Amino acid sequence: MFPKLCRPLSSINFRTVKCFCKPRQLNKYYNIIARANSSASSSFLCDKNVIFVAGLGDIGLDTSKELLKRDLKNLVILDRIDKPELVCELKELNPKTKVTFMPYDVTVPIAESKKLLKKIFDKLKCVDILINGAGILDDHKIEATIAVNYTGLVNTTTAIMDFWDIRKGGPGGIICNIGSVTGFNPITQVPVYSGSKAAVVNFTSSLAKLAHITGVTAYTVNPGITRTSLVAKFNSWLDVEPDVAELLLEHPTQSTKECAASFVKAIEKNKNGGLWFLDQGILEDIKWDKHWDPCI
Amino acid sequence: MFPKLCRPLSSINFRTVKCFCKPRQLNKYYNIIARANSSASSSFLCDKNVIFVAGLGDIGLDTSKELLKRDLKNLVILDRIDKPELVCELKELNPKTKVTFMPYDVTVPIAESKKLLKKIFDKLKCVDILINGAGILDDHKIEATIAVNYTGLVNTTTAIMDFWDIRKGGPGGIICNIGSVTGFNPITQVPVYSGSKAAVVNFTSSLAKLAHITGVTAYTVNPGITRTSLVAKFNSWLDVEPDVAELLLEHPTQSTKECAASFVKAIEKNKNGGLWFLDQGILEDIKWDKHWDPCI
Repeated sequence: MFPKLCRPLSSINFRTVKCFCKPRQLNKYYNIIARANSSASSSFLCDKNVIFVAGLGDIGLDTSKELLKRDLKNLVILDRIDKPELVCELKELNPKTKVTFMPYDVTVPIAESKKLLKKIFDKLKCVDILINGAGILDDHKIEATIAVNYTGLVNTTTAIMDFWDIRKGGPGGIICNIGSVTGFNPITQVPVYSGSKAAVVNFTSSLAKLAHITGVTAYTVNPGITRTSLVAKFNSWLDVEPDVAELLLEHPTQSTKECAASFVKAIEKNKNGGLWFLDQGILEDIKWDKHWDPCI
Repeated sequence: MFPKLCRPLSSINFRTVKCFCKPRQLNKYYNIIARANSSASSSFLCDKNVIFVAGLGDIGLDTSKELLKRDLKNLVILDRIDKPELVCELKELNPKTKVTFMPYDVTVPIAESKKLLKKIFDKLKCVDILINGAGILDDHKIEATIAVNYTGLVNTTTAIMDFWDIRKGGPGGIICNIGSVTGFNPITQVPVYSGSKAAVVNFTSSLAKLAHITGVTAYTVNPGITRTSLVAKFNSWLDVEPDVAELLLEHPTQSTKECAASFVKAIEKNKNGGLWFLDQGILEDIKWDKHWDPCI
């Protein structure tokens, strides 16, 4: 292990002491991260096993369809409510991919999440990618918004580490978390939702930086305003703006198909730590401002 | 009401259509926000009624002591556990200020928070400032971390709006939320905690922008690494770094007293939307990057 001098940081309030990083298990696992950052290929998803939480949702369904164009081996859709007709439609899209549906509510205790994942791993043996996409947008429902959008995503992520963490002999894996542009800058009329998405963005950026320890890489896809049933009508916090949905939709938006196309492009880029901004059919990797550095 | 052209935004992925803001109740309440942004005075806190959630905590206690130097009228401390000897100590510090303690766990249902606040408002008639400071740092406890650090803060904030919201005939008020530098950039070893603080930062920035509607201004104080019992020893997520506390403390930190001094300075500056960075005894207002704009 070589102590490594961090890059010099110029801001006055940075913790400007010389900081010596203590890399852990670095050399052995650099290949996982290197692989993650070099896979911008259209065949990347071919033969992969993918778990998609909320893969029948508005953005989810079109993203599932887009994924099925890539000849996955398995697409396991976990969603709160079964919609058999949609699952049938997906199954018929590509005979090369086995599509499975299993009911899952992300707000269950983490032990339940682990049980469900065990079933999936027992069956498929290996899972390559977990997409965490469960989300609600209703600022009248404070507990539910936070429980689904943040706690549920953290629990599902934590649960899959039992199977993926290289420290436990796992093979590593890839986590794709659905954030939102509101995690960068809020829609002020839905502060509870926006805050929950900021949590997702921040949480996932940590996961990416822990990849050398866990073997699990991570990034967020952050859709801009997308024409979904979620956005068509929703409650603002304390009704500060009853017309928030209508006002948002007066400005340029994107269709769920456009969003799904960018979404799968981002997955194919497979960039550890990517902060993907998906707006109006365009895909861009955001650079996050550095306000301070814990130096560890 | 005049439609107002937003500032032009240059980034390629901004929603660049001309956006006409719909200001609501602006003229009537501009004075509240103007007042909020012009009160950088050392006598600002004199005769004020302040509610301090977690005012007996590590940073809380020294901040309470610092507040008591300002001749408040009332300091109502809400904390999970009563510590009578500390409350006695605070009561003796300044006879001009009435110090009261009431037990409060921020994870109770919002109806309970409203009941407690009603008692306080009934007694004091008016409350000027609410400081939300409850926080835990233990990434083994996912639900508790999010429930205390984010959901509890949102619920307490939402509860006080019953008494402050100008749309309900209230007088407005000031919310000071304790975030953390980890809300800007995470300590990657505690991603759950860091994410919860990012949520607080994002949530509060929305509150500030809603002040023209609610009459309630808001800002965050975001301490850097401060030598508290919270930081002395804590669990990292999945034990990715068992020595995270020790490693952090190898770098420059600040004492709770230094933090408290900056904290009260920030309160005195009373800047709506302030993103106060309190590190190593220095107080700085952070400028947040704009990655997109909802244009509403």
